[in-house]
Parts: sequence; C-alpha cells; structure tokens
Amino acid sequence: MNPLSSPLLADLYQFTMLQTYLEQRMDDIAVFELFVRKLPAGRNFLVAAGLDQVLEFLENLHFTPEELTWLAKRFPPHVIDYLERFRFTGDVHAMPEGTVFFPNEPILRITAPMPQAQLVESRIINLMHFETLIASKAARSVLIARNKLLVDFGMRRAHGAEAGLLAARASYLAGFSGTATLLAGALYDIPVFGTMAHSFVQAHQNEIDAFAHFARSHPDNTMLLIDTYDTEVAAAKVVTLAQQLRSENIRIKGVRLDSGDLAQHARNVRAILDDGGLRETTIFASGNLDEYKLQALLAAQAPIDGFGIGTALDISLDAPALDCAYKLQEYAGIPRRKHSEGKATWPGRKQVYRRYTNDGQLLEDTVALEDENPQPGEALLQPFMRAGKRLQPTLTLHELRSRTLTGYRCLTQNMTALEAAPPYPVTISAALHAMAEQIDRQYLTQHHGQT
Amino acid sequence: MNPLSSPLLADLYQFTMLQTYLEQRMDDIAVFELFVRKLPAGRNFLVAAGLDQVLEFLENLHFTPEELTWLAKRFPPHVIDYLERFRFTGDVHAMPEGTVFFPNEPILRITAPMPQAQLVESRIINLMHFETLIASKAARSVLIARNKLLVDFGMRRAHGAEAGLLAARASYLAGFSGTATLLAGALYDIPVFGTMAHSFVQAHQNEIDAFAHFARSHPDNTMLLIDTYDTEVAAAKVVTLAQQLRSENIRIKGVRLDSGDLAQHARNVRAILDDGGLRETTIFASGNLDEYKLQALLAAQAPIDGFGIGTALDISLDAPALDCAYKLQEYAGIPRRKHSEGKATWPGRKQVYRRYTNDGQLLEDTVALEDENPQPGEALLQPFMRAGKRLQPTLTLHELRSRTLTGYRCLTQNMTALEAAPPYPVTISAALHAMAEQIDRQYLTQHHGQT
Repeated sequence: MNPLSSPLLADLYQFTMLQTYLEQRMDDIAVFELFVRKLPAGRNFLVAAGLDQVLEFLENLHFTPEELTWLAKRFPPHVIDYLERFRFTGDVHAMPEGTVFFPNEPILRITAPMPQAQLVESRIINLMHFETLIASKAARSVLIARNKLLVDFGMRRAHGAEAGLLAARASYLAGFSGTATLLAGALYDIPVFGTMAHSFVQAHQNEIDAFAHFARSHPDNTMLLIDTYDTEVAAAKVVTLAQQLRSENIRIKGVRLDSGDLAQHARNVRAILDDGGLRETTIFASGNLDEYKLQALLAAQAPIDGFGIGTALDISLDAPALDCAYKLQEYAGIPRRKHSEGKATWPGRKQVYRRYTNDGQLLEDTVALEDENPQPGEALLQPFMRAGKRLQPTLTLHELRSRTLTGYRCLTQNMTALEAAPPYPVTISAALHAMAEQIDRQYLTQHHGQT
Repeated sequence: MNPLSSPLLADLYQFTMLQTYLEQRMDDIAVFELFVRKLPAGRNFLVAAGLDQVLEFLENLHFTPEELTWLAKRFPPHVIDYLERFRFTGDVHAMPEGTVFFPNEPILRITAPMPQAQLVESRIINLMHFETLIASKAARSVLIARNKLLVDFGMRRAHGAEAGLLAARASYLAGFSGTATLLAGALYDIPVFGTMAHSFVQAHQNEIDAFAHFARSHPDNTMLLIDTYDTEVAAAKVVTLAQQLRSENIRIKGVRLDSGDLAQHARNVRAILDDGGLRETTIFASGNLDEYKLQALLAAQAPIDGFGIGTALDISLDAPALDCAYKLQEYAGIPRRKHSEGKATWPGRKQVYRRYTNDGQLLEDTVALEDENPQPGEALLQPFMRAGKRLQPTLTLHELRSRTLTGYRCLTQNMTALEAAPPYPVTISAALHAMAEQIDRQYLTQHHGQT
C-alpha cells in the first residue's frame, strides 16, 4: 500500500457510508465544495494551492489487490466488488493554484456520483489544506522581502516527508526562490540551495580548514557558514582565505549567519568583507526567521541578501491550520444545507466573481449560484477535470509561480501588510441568499411543523 | 523516487558536505545526538517517538539508479561511485519509544562514519521531531481523560499524508484508543473507529431515513451523527428508530455530537436516550476538541463516553514544533562543541540516568558521559542498531503502548497537569561540565590566544 496514493488514506466513515450508499442505490450526482470558513488572526487573504496533487490523486485512484484483501475482512463482498472496479469519473472545478481568495469562497468543487465524491473527501482536504496553508504563509514573506532571495529551509521540522516536499512546492508557487530540500528539486524542478552545517565546521580542527576544504570542493558555489564559534572572527578568516584562494581562481560566493543579532552581525560582517575586498560576497541569514523578523531586518537596513526560512514557514507557525471544510452542497439535483450550530453552509453549486478597480486592484468578490445570471467580474472557478480525465493544458509550476507573483499586484497596500486590514468585501448574491432561506423554510416545515 | 524513503529527502548541504568529506578522506566515526533544547510553554515533559521509522529508514537506505542519474548531473563521478555502494553501517542508541524525557537529554544517538551520519540528518530529525511532538501532545489528553475512549480524528488537517499516518501511530503509542484513519489501521494494526459525516445525513430527504439506512447496513456498529440539524430533535428520532429496529435485532450503539455546547447537549441527549430506554447507547463527542476542552467537559461531568480529537492533536496546535537539534558531539574520537550564541551544546557521547523515589515517581535525571563511572539510576539510552542491522527483539506497537501507559505512573501529579509545573531536575554530571570547559579553554587558546 502506497501511503501517498492509497484510497485507504481515508476515514473509516467514508467506507461505512459508501456501503450504505451502495445498498440504498444512492449513486446520484453529489456536489461537494471546499472552502475556508475564516481567516487566521492577522491575515488578509489566502493563496489557493494543492490542486495539482488533488488531480493526480483522483486520476490514479484505484484499489490494489492487497488493499482489497485487507478491506474484504471488514466489508461485505458487494462493497469489494464495487471497489475492485472503482475509478474516479467525476468533474473538478477549482481556482487555479496561486489565486488569492477569501473566506466562504469555494476554491474546489467535486461533481461525481455520491459514493465517489464521499470517498475522496479526507485526502482532498489533507492536500488542499496543507498546500494552501503554506502558500498563504509564504506569500507574506514574499510580499515583505520582494527582491531578496528567499529559500525554504524547513523540511527537517515539517510534519513528515510529504509536508516537507509540499511545503517546498507551495512556497515556491507563492514566490520563494527555491528550497534546501534536494528531493523537492528532483520531483518538482524547484531550484535547490545549500551551504554547510555547523557539524562540518566542528569536524575540522580549525574553522579556516573547513572553509578551505569546502571552497576547493565547490569552487563555483562556495557558501560558508560563519557562526559556529565567533561570527566576526570567522568573517576575517573568510577574507584571509579569499586572498589565498585567488590564485586557484576560487571566489567566496557568500557567507551564512545563523544565530545572534542578525542585523548587527550582518553590518559587522559586511564591513569586514568590504574592507577585505569581498564586495561581491553575499550575506545570507537563517535561524528561526519568519516574516516579522524579515520586516524588522529590512526596516533596520541590515545588509542581508537572502533569507532561509524554516520552521515558521513549513508548519505555518502562527497559524498551523485553516478552518476549512469539504461540504455537500447538492445531491440528486437538490441543493443541501448543513445547519449545525456555528457551521451552517451556503448551498448549491457556486461560482466566485471578482471585480477590480480601474487601476487593477481588488474591489469586491461575489459568491453566486453557478446557474444564476452571470455576475460582473472575472469567474474564478475553472474546469480542471471532466469525467475523471484532466483537461489540458496544465501550466508548469514555474508558470504558476509567475502568475501568482503577477496576481499579488492586485492586492491593496493594506492587504500586503502583516497586520489585519479591514476585511475584503465578499458578497453573497441575492439568489444564493434566497435559496438558503428557502431550504431553511422547508426544513422548519418538515421537522417542526412551523413555517 | 519514493518520497518516503528516498535518500534525496535531505538538504542539499548534506550532499555538498559529503563531497568534501570524501575528497578530504574525512570518514572517521562521528557521533551525533538528537535532543530538545527546551519544553514548549505550559508543558512538563515530552514523550519520545519515531524510532521505529528511523530504524526502518536507515536499514533500507540506498540510492536507486534513477536517483543516481539525477545526482550525476550535479555531483562529480567519485561522489556517484560512493553513493552507488552506499549503505548505512552505523550504530543507533535511543530511548525506547514512549519514554518520558526532558530538555537537553539525548533521545537518539547515531555513531557512524561521518559521510553517513551527516547524510541522514534531516530525515532523522523530520521523523523523530514529528512523532515526538504528537506523542507528547496526545499524552496530555490521555492523562486528563484516563478511562474515556480517545480517537485520533485529525488526518484531514494533518500536514500531508505521512503526518496523518504518523500522528495516528504516535497518538496510539501515547495511549489513544485508535484512529479514524483506515490506512493507519492497515499499516500499523491500530484499532479504527468511525461514524458518519453530515453529508450522509444531508443526502437523505429525512434525517431518520439516513439513520435507518445506516443502521441496517451496520447492525453491529451503528454510530449516528445527530447534530446536522437539531441535536435534541435528532436524539428523539434515535429513540423512535431504536423501537422500530428492535424487531430486526439492531441496537443503536452510539451517537455523536459535533457542534454547539457539548456538555449541555450531552446532558440533554443522555436524558432523551435514557427516557427512551437506550441506557446502553453511548455518547461520543467531537468538534475542535483539545485537552483543555476535555478537562472542562470532564469537570462539568458531561455524560460523554468518548472523544474524537482532530486538528489540535495532529498538528499539536498549541505547540506545532519542538526546538530540537541533531548535533555533532564527537568526531574521530575527539569531543566537539558548538558555541553559536544561545545554541551551545554539551559535547561527547552521553547517557541519561533516571532515579525514582521509593514509591516509583520521577526524582532526578543526570546527563553524563557514557564512559565516565556509571551514575546511579536507570540508563535510558539503549542500543537498537549495530553496524546497520536492527537488534532483536523489537516490541510491537501495542506492547510499546502498554509500556508507555505504565510509564505515566512515574509522573508526579504536578507533571500530569495541563499547566507548567516547577521544572523537573536534569543534572549535568561533573565530568561533562569539566569536558565542556576544557573544550572552551582549548577553543579560546586556539582562536584568540587567551586562556
């Protein structure tokens, strides 16, 4: 069983419900939509991500003999017969990855026979939630530090392997320059960056030997970590070493700071490097960084050329989860609405329309029913899969990243700040309001005999 | 390339350092230790987990032809030759999974030739950090709600597939009763629990039809979700349905609440069920629960028999990362110490000794050098792998879970509370202090000419 693609990557209830759906012949078309209920504190927008992984999951979904054998001990033969032939044959509509979005806006819609649409619930949430979480977090650093090199350093503290890989992908999509994670480079063609660890320096008897050895191995890409013992002392050693290596045609490309007062160390190190003739040698900083520390370092005009962001990025430290849901909005042609306290949903198949000001900034979004008269503005949900097959052409990750960066230009200045701005207006259309009220009236009539 | 076992699941710098180690023939034995620098706010202890995954990773570590081809575009032939023959041949010492531990105590030690020990760094941290994080979080709910059913509900909001699976494993290890994640059941033999989703109820025109259909499909395990519309109205329907189903020999095993004031709903529902003769029908609660809400519900004597804990558990919401590190402590027989500001480490190969009071409660831990005279107390680090081979026998996950639950009995009452207790005493041995001071003196002599 492949943990990343197995259809058993689901909650038990998806299979118990499936059994009942089959026994009751409830295989009419169901429409589920994925949306976020509210923004995390201090956030002004989110960035949709994870669609490519969802489409790959749906297109390849099937049960292996091993999985069927395991299930056969727990479910009756008619369920196993059904699962043996199982393929996802539904449609997917979604906002393209990298699209800025807001609470209550569907970012993904699944239209498929009920047993299928229900079976894929948990993995779809799992993928979309995490990549959207990370892309939304990464966007904040990108907007703060527009022209700096930003590198994902977080795999080691990401929650497992897939989180590390998808965090590299989602942060690159949101505008990061690349990642330290080699496998993310191999799988997604993301630029990979790296220097050296403290252990490398410690394993040598002298710090300058460590630097010299590394430089001779990597003459074209010498990045030296200089905070293992004393940052400024190490910077002076870098100057000495650079003079020694000049005859070997080796240039020290950059140094990395990883502890202490990064702004002060950067100023000291910049002066030492400049005095030593190493004006081209860049300074890269890491060590528990996040977008707030980036903002402070930039405000202090610290001479830092690039940043590695680890834990805060890969687990979205200030908001490690989004309040998102995958909800049934229509079944057998009839719109549905959940009434649970504090968790009511907008029924029906919906579209999101976005309007812009004359100078191209976000003005207002409207959530409307798909089949009501089109609203003014850009329709954000697009078809990505029909009858279980992906629609072509798909943009590459690099193209999606460019599109995402362009999309940021539509954000108002308020929205690009790290603090909460006044909420962006998301209007619910009159027809959608009317439909919700009609369902509520029907429910009351039916369940309480009231009108 | 298998994302969960590929040796490319590493930072680029592990490979650039490896190249230099090979070119400098730095293949002496390195000793790395993994430890946590400090407890998250409000926590009194941590629970070690993830060792089984680390051992499996190390034992199977190798490069596939595809991985070597990818690397060959980036590294010289002598590196590829080395990697083609690469196997992990080192030793692993660790605290058994489920062991309670404290800051600055090594929980895992890798002893291997430097290129190997460095190459495995990121994935070892990635696995141990996450499972330890979740086991430590889960332990809090287990200690608060000792005799209640606790089920992991968090896969959908876990950070990717592996996080969902390992969270199910780590929370079960820490004493949870099971998980909703089917694949965790299949992979780790963990008990799997489930009910139904709101969508199932919504897909029916009448709630009671949904209940009846589900009950007839699952006569031995009928768990009904009763908060889709009105919880108490639904509870009355359950009573009606139970009377209808009695002739079919179907009993309603339990109901689930998922929204609103859970304590009040539970009391109302308990009364409705009891009045209807359903005294055996249990009440299960879910919906943004964590250990604090559990404590409040238990203090309110809410008649709830079990809890599903999702997001708060699977992402360890109050503390989604631990400040942990994998640091070089010895190379080529010489102890090493990192001096970076605020991040200095204790050098050398270490052992942790634990002493207990006469009534079996934790008294004091001592971190000492492995080769100094043994300290009084239980030595917590044990050998788990020699020369790249796992040592037998390994405990099953069920046995580890029992051992973990027994281990909790050693916690003082202060430590089992959800608030911060006075720190548990972890002493650094005199010999370890002396070694650290000696290394510092050598460093100062060498780098500043001072003594």
